[in-house]
Amino acid sequence: MALKKKPVTGMKDILPKEMEIRNYVMNMIRETYGKFGFTAIETPCVEHIENLSSKQGGENEKLIFKILKRGEKLKLDTAECEADLVDSGLRYDLTVPLSRYYSNNASQLPAPFKALQMGNVWRADRPQRGRFRQFMQCDIDILGESTYLAEIELVMATTTLLGKLDFHNFTIRINDRKILKAMAQYSGFPEESFDTVFIILDKMDKIGLEGVAEELEKEGFSKESIDTYLGMFKEITSDIEGVRYCKEKLRDVLDPKVAEDLETIITAVDSVKNADFKISFDPTLVRGMSYYTGPIFEIAMDEFGGSVGGGGRYDEMIGKFTGQNTSACGFSIGFERIVMLLLERGYEIPTSAAKKAYLIEKNMPADKLLPILKQAEEERKNGVQVNISIMKKNKKFQKEQMTAEGYTEFVEFFNK
Amino acid sequence: MALKKKPVTGMKDILPKEMEIRNYVMNMIRETYGKFGFTAIETPCVEHIENLSSKQGGENEKLIFKILKRGEKLKLDTAECEADLVDSGLRYDLTVPLSRYYSNNASQLPAPFKALQMGNVWRADRPQRGRFRQFMQCDIDILGESTYLAEIELVMATTTLLGKLDFHNFTIRINDRKILKAMAQYSGFPEESFDTVFIILDKMDKIGLEGVAEELEKEGFSKESIDTYLGMFKEITSDIEGVRYCKEKLRDVLDPKVAEDLETIITAVDSVKNADFKISFDPTLVRGMSYYTGPIFEIAMDEFGGSVGGGGRYDEMIGKFTGQNTSACGFSIGFERIVMLLLERGYEIPTSAAKKAYLIEKNMPADKLLPILKQAEEERKNGVQVNISIMKKNKKFQKEQMTAEGYTEFVEFFNK
Repeated sequence: MALKKKPVTGMKDILPKEMEIRNYVMNMIRETYGKFGFTAIETPCVEHIENLSSKQGGENEKLIFKILKRGEKLKLDTAECEADLVDSGLRYDLTVPLSRYYSNNASQLPAPFKALQMGNVWRADRPQRGRFRQFMQCDIDILGESTYLAEIELVMATTTLLGKLDFHNFTIRINDRKILKAMAQYSGFPEESFDTVFIILDKMDKIGLEGVAEELEKEGFSKESIDTYLGMFKEITSDIEGVRYCKEKLRDVLDPKVAEDLETIITAVDSVKNADFKISFDPTLVRGMSYYTGPIFEIAMDEFGGSVGGGGRYDEMIGKFTGQNTSACGFSIGFERIVMLLLERGYEIPTSAAKKAYLIEKNMPADKLLPILKQAEEERKNGVQVNISIMKKNKKFQKEQMTAEGYTEFVEFFNK
Repeated sequence: MALKKKPVTGMKDILPKEMEIRNYVMNMIRETYGKFGFTAIETPCVEHIENLSSKQGGENEKLIFKILKRGEKLKLDTAECEADLVDSGLRYDLTVPLSRYYSNNASQLPAPFKALQMGNVWRADRPQRGRFRQFMQCDIDILGESTYLAEIELVMATTTLLGKLDFHNFTIRINDRKILKAMAQYSGFPEESFDTVFIILDKMDKIGLEGVAEELEKEGFSKESIDTYLGMFKEITSDIEGVRYCKEKLRDVLDPKVAEDLETIITAVDSVKNADFKISFDPTLVRGMSYYTGPIFEIAMDEFGGSVGGGGRYDEMIGKFTGQNTSACGFSIGFERIVMLLLERGYEIPTSAAKKAYLIEKNMPADKLLPILKQAEEERKNGVQVNISIMKKNKKFQKEQMTAEGYTEFVEFFNK
């Protein structure tokens, strides 16, 4: 029987060249985040269907790859709906499994717990260029740290990583969900409409201030609210002066500590940073997921024309699951986008190991093969990469192919 | 809604301590196999159900986690059997996906192609201690190399790796499927019964020579065949003399080149090896999968009391799938067993980086926090791992906990 040669729809085979970049980035992630005290953990790729359908996943819950029950548990003849057929699914993110992991293992984990997760997630999204149905996510989370130390460390770790991967001139956009809400409240929008307002605000970078005003009008919000709201965005600068403006202006609806903490985060990152980026206050930053409770942030990169990562504080999520409140803050980098950018750039991985190819004439007698193998072992022990092949008829082509693979030195062995 | 806290049946959360060992082993694998010229590749975890059910997977095909069709393709009301409901499944090994990968991408791959795969596979096995339904496999394969150079390199790479991971005194058992068959043929067993004979022979290390004789008798084989067969096993030594005995004894039913090649492999490995193991000819080695066509091998380790890896030549498998014959030989190490052995042994990962914990008094004002963060950045740049935490009321317990995590130095910062 012939195999289906292509991967399943929306997923991809990873060729050696890309794999080399992926492994390099993964090593850099482990090394860099490790220096900040994050420890790697792993959860199964398969998760209880109940946990995946717990409403924490938003739109992603519609994209689950569901797994059929097995053996006697599968009762096809009496099954009435999909839910009767499945008991689990592939995880669509690493946050829901992290919550489960933490509630299952907290007694064996340090407090605060600084977790690093790198793993595949699956979403049955419509296939499109550059987006795949299996992709790697890379999250760091600090659980049990209620102060802004968590935000500062997350942003420092992430920007240090990006710097080491040779990214420059990017921007960390930062806001706080509490400022976002206070601005809407101050402007007189009804609280039950906040989400509608934020969905429109989120389009600011695409449709501009006028576009946002138009859409808010279409929704039927009062002219006064809209004017007050947009008036503030015109006033607010993207530095700590902007934060101070919010603190002053919103003093009746916002705990001043929220603005003070945000100022501290921005100041700290700005003065400690060791990579080439800027951190800017952006009151239009929304971040889709409703579970955020405090500071939120996103990485903007001109080169990419969009976000290559983001995160924020979600102090109420784990408690909802476990019954015990646990402050939590996380930062997820867009691993696939970073790999894509490095590939497009033709990024050369810094390597020190020499790569040698041994070409051995065909039918070399066993006794003459031995010293060659010993020589290879000796070289490998000294750190050299040695690839032994049988010499082909078309030796020229063979060498060209190996040169493309990065082999710079050829040693030929003949039977004579 | 409360989460289900435990992982799904048969799968596990990986705690930091184990994860550290896993990452260490994975790095060692990439580094060691890399020196032999193996390049990492990856295939999707999800595979076409047709490919998974192609009869190459033997018993594993009964253990597939199957994935439900999605959207309009799922027609629950007209579905009559399981096959109508699913279009894909989780891979149960890395060999079937490798065959698909090779047939899909051969034009972009070097020849011969030396592939390294590390990835999870899933089998809905009955859960039991130490065996999980999601586990990591780690395979190296050489595609397109027809000579014994492939076997030698695979065994050398694998044993070098085990040596670096501090394993000693293990044994590489080696045999050839052609010798296995020739011995059965020489003894007069009918060819259609070979598989039955081999299944019984495979129990030799558990039930001994008498046990094997008994079971063969029970199956109704002639006393003469059984006597001839077992007589040979008594004669054959586990060194190259044993191989030479087979070459001589089986000369009418075995191409002498098979024995000569096996002798070369054993001699080469034995004289080039740089780890503490022995390689021995074992005519009772069967290896379950029917796709093997030539030399087969297995790692035996007293410490574990069983196999911690194995492989062999399977020259006909890829051709069956792709229509184009491609010689192939692979070696799979038991990643999970190796990790388990290292954990049980209390293996300490060699590390050079210092681990420091900064403890900061609660409510440290922002201006006093900055120099501390700068100091941490400076240290991290110099290779030190620095974990910053807020000082807890029970500082003693906090320090104990961090000491257990490997932090050897504590720096305390107070607001005064």
